[in-house]
Amino acid sequence: MIDRLCIIGVGLIGGSLARALRAAGFCKEVVGGGRDPGHLQQAVDLGVIDRFDTDLAAAVAGADMVLVAVPLGAMQSVFSQIRDHLEDNAVLTDAGSAKGSVIEAAQQAFGSVPAWFVPGHPIAGTEYSGVAASLPDLYRDRRVILTPLEHTAAAAVERVRAMWEAAGAVVSEMDVVHHDAVLAATSHLPHVLAFALVDSLARLGDTEELFAYAAGGFRDFTRIASSDPVMWRDICLANGDAIQLLIDRFIEDLHLLRQAVHEQDGARLLELFESAKQVRDAFVGK
Amino acid sequence: MIDRLCIIGVGLIGGSLARALRAAGFCKEVVGGGRDPGHLQQAVDLGVIDRFDTDLAAAVAGADMVLVAVPLGAMQSVFSQIRDHLEDNAVLTDAGSAKGSVIEAAQQAFGSVPAWFVPGHPIAGTEYSGVAASLPDLYRDRRVILTPLEHTAAAAVERVRAMWEAAGAVVSEMDVVHHDAVLAATSHLPHVLAFALVDSLARLGDTEELFAYAAGGFRDFTRIASSDPVMWRDICLANGDAIQLLIDRFIEDLHLLRQAVHEQDGARLLELFESAKQVRDAFVGK
Repeated sequence: MIDRLCIIGVGLIGGSLARALRAAGFCKEVVGGGRDPGHLQQAVDLGVIDRFDTDLAAAVAGADMVLVAVPLGAMQSVFSQIRDHLEDNAVLTDAGSAKGSVIEAAQQAFGSVPAWFVPGHPIAGTEYSGVAASLPDLYRDRRVILTPLEHTAAAAVERVRAMWEAAGAVVSEMDVVHHDAVLAATSHLPHVLAFALVDSLARLGDTEELFAYAAGGFRDFTRIASSDPVMWRDICLANGDAIQLLIDRFIEDLHLLRQAVHEQDGARLLELFESAKQVRDAFVGK
Repeated sequence: MIDRLCIIGVGLIGGSLARALRAAGFCKEVVGGGRDPGHLQQAVDLGVIDRFDTDLAAAVAGADMVLVAVPLGAMQSVFSQIRDHLEDNAVLTDAGSAKGSVIEAAQQAFGSVPAWFVPGHPIAGTEYSGVAASLPDLYRDRRVILTPLEHTAAAAVERVRAMWEAAGAVVSEMDVVHHDAVLAATSHLPHVLAFALVDSLARLGDTEELFAYAAGGFRDFTRIASSDPVMWRDICLANGDAIQLLIDRFIEDLHLLRQAVHEQDGARLLELFESAKQVRDAFVGK
């Protein structure tokens, strides 16, 4: 149980957690923190949070659990603002999509990474953003990865785990570097490719005419290109090394495929497509 | 109205048209043609066709409309088999995803492209294939593009248009080369990228562990990598020039994005992502 949860950044991710914990009766009070009072008032009006404070020092006062759910580029600033105002019993966690950079931000802000800070990442979302898009069941049966360091307090990890489990998530732990490599592959690279594809096609000219003839496959394939640009800019900056490595490998693989098209090598194309279909069908359990 | 429709290749595309036309009462009889009697019997059992013949010459006998819905690589062979057996009043059309290659196949098989052959392309589908996946409303409000040549008979175009409209589709006409360029951009390139992404990630190693942490975005993004490999091999062979051109442009654009990641150029990344989001949101009418 949480007595007072403070969520800094009440958008899709933070708002959905608040809704889930309230629905589960796991949390007595939710206080929102952030920069935009209009946005935070909307969260109050929607019943997602009880009250808010744009002064983050005041927002975290009295909270036994603090979740920072802001874009990665804002993490260090938030940590610095709350550093001297957290309760002694408070556990701090975050929801950033890359973990190495958040740990670095915590180190910078706190001098060293606190034992009661548990880096976390809920692997859930939609292409929508903002508190109005938040859903009480966003985390139901979804994965949450925690990446505690060696000196992270076991009790703090357990409290964060219990919070996400109360929201319906399946929680696991992973090494920071491994997390960032895995997510670069399954999330960051696909998002980068979706953005790049839409940009690339837009440069061809008349997008209205072009997209008029696009089918459902294109709609699905580009869905993630409607995601929040600021969040994705920050992810590309925060996990740049892993993402670059994967872009490079992808470009190499795409060159091979292009070569097979150029050489009219039907056998090679069939092999590539069959292998991809097999892997993808296995993934969705066909 | 169609008295007897012959569909050669009774899979997702041909089967869905048969279901739609029967539901609309637009067609008295549907005869299936193809190679696999077991597969064609399944189409009879499902009520999609009335009867079938694996001898294509016999299958087209008495048909006033013939749709060839086979992979692009099989078009020329089918055209050659039916060439001397079509009725005088028969209109021939196809459902290939690239049109230049089908017109070339017709030219090869018939000596010259017949005036009563109307090249066509229904822009619809799912990642599933086979007659069991066919749906009566697959074409409802979807686009069908016809690419008649200068000497194509207007009456033949009208009959094919009426058929697709009876299935609920919105029919338009387009120049062959333009069709193949547009579809390379909105369909062929995305499919190639989806196949390439899954292959590229599979080469990283433990796909089971990797995909365990993949979210809904990845699922949607890679959905089209579950499409029929033979069909997509044939599309890559048939529309190779247009596809290569787009792969090359995409690789160039991806290099620029990679460069922005490498240089930690947040302003450039934000600009790229915002532009993509704007275009994509406009496409889905947000």
